[in-house]
Amino acid sequence: MRVLGIDPGLRNMGWGVVDVQGSRITHVANGICHGLGDNLAERLLALYQGLSAVMIAHAPDRAAVEQTFVNKDAVGTLKLGQARGIALLVVAQAGIEVGEYAPNAVKKAVVGVGHAAKAQIDHMVRLQLPGVALAGPDAADALAIAICHAHHLQSAGHLDKALAKAAARVAS
Amino acid sequence: MRVLGIDPGLRNMGWGVVDVQGSRITHVANGICHGLGDNLAERLLALYQGLSAVMIAHAPDRAAVEQTFVNKDAVGTLKLGQARGIALLVVAQAGIEVGEYAPNAVKKAVVGVGHAAKAQIDHMVRLQLPGVALAGPDAADALAIAICHAHHLQSAGHLDKALAKAAARVAS
Repeated sequence: MRVLGIDPGLRNMGWGVVDVQGSRITHVANGICHGLGDNLAERLLALYQGLSAVMIAHAPDRAAVEQTFVNKDAVGTLKLGQARGIALLVVAQAGIEVGEYAPNAVKKAVVGVGHAAKAQIDHMVRLQLPGVALAGPDAADALAIAICHAHHLQSAGHLDKALAKAAARVAS
Repeated sequence: MRVLGIDPGLRNMGWGVVDVQGSRITHVANGICHGLGDNLAERLLALYQGLSAVMIAHAPDRAAVEQTFVNKDAVGTLKLGQARGIALLVVAQAGIEVGEYAPNAVKKAVVGVGHAAKAQIDHMVRLQLPGVALAGPDAADALAIAICHAHHLQSAGHLDKALAKAAARVAS
């Protein structure tokens, strides 16, 4: 199963792809889509085109997007919201269900604590995906989101198996 | 020249199309795209598909989107931002420049004052586009945005003509 993680941003939209086989998670690719353009609409179009190309190139089966941290900076929240809308649209267009994780949940899944610094995430992503070349901090965050979603899918898979076993036991 | 106005919203995305010939503005169509779906990504996809269909059906030359009112409700701002991102994307995909107007500028252009109530906008849109059947308040707002942009383009046109005349006078 291939999982795409997206760290939404108007200037830099990080993305990372991992493969999940049982309990094994391996790196596939990571990068950053740049929201370049003379105005907001053009920047959003650039993000849409960049992320659509990633979708086509790597054909993920699942995807997850970081939940936006809503803060007191309303203008910043609005900008991020616009970029996040594009990320969710591209995933929905591919017919893929999208998981959403709060930044703290991602940190906890990858580093073990919910208040980890950027450098720690970077470090743990490198440890968990040996030999990975990171395109930047936003790409590292995106891989962390993909790993978080992979863990979630793995534990859901274990639960499904356990439930199926229990059901079989009851039925026999 | 055909002008599309969009009033962005996650639940209801209002749209309105007018034709501009000299100082004359006539109604073409208006409606509401509904952001329906089981989750946010699906809702954004529904808005994208609805607005793309409007774009194809009416082929506007220009477009304008209402500037989002950034307020203290950060969660609301984020939702609106996501919907607004879709509106800007669809316009950019059509290769059309997009004008952005603050709600007060739209009200001033259509009603004459910047603090007009919804009912007044509705009334003035009906007066300026005789016989129009409005799909709802969001569609009325979208037509008001289209009218506002049409006025802006008209005065820019007048200015261009006046400058050309003045330049010809200087040259002769």
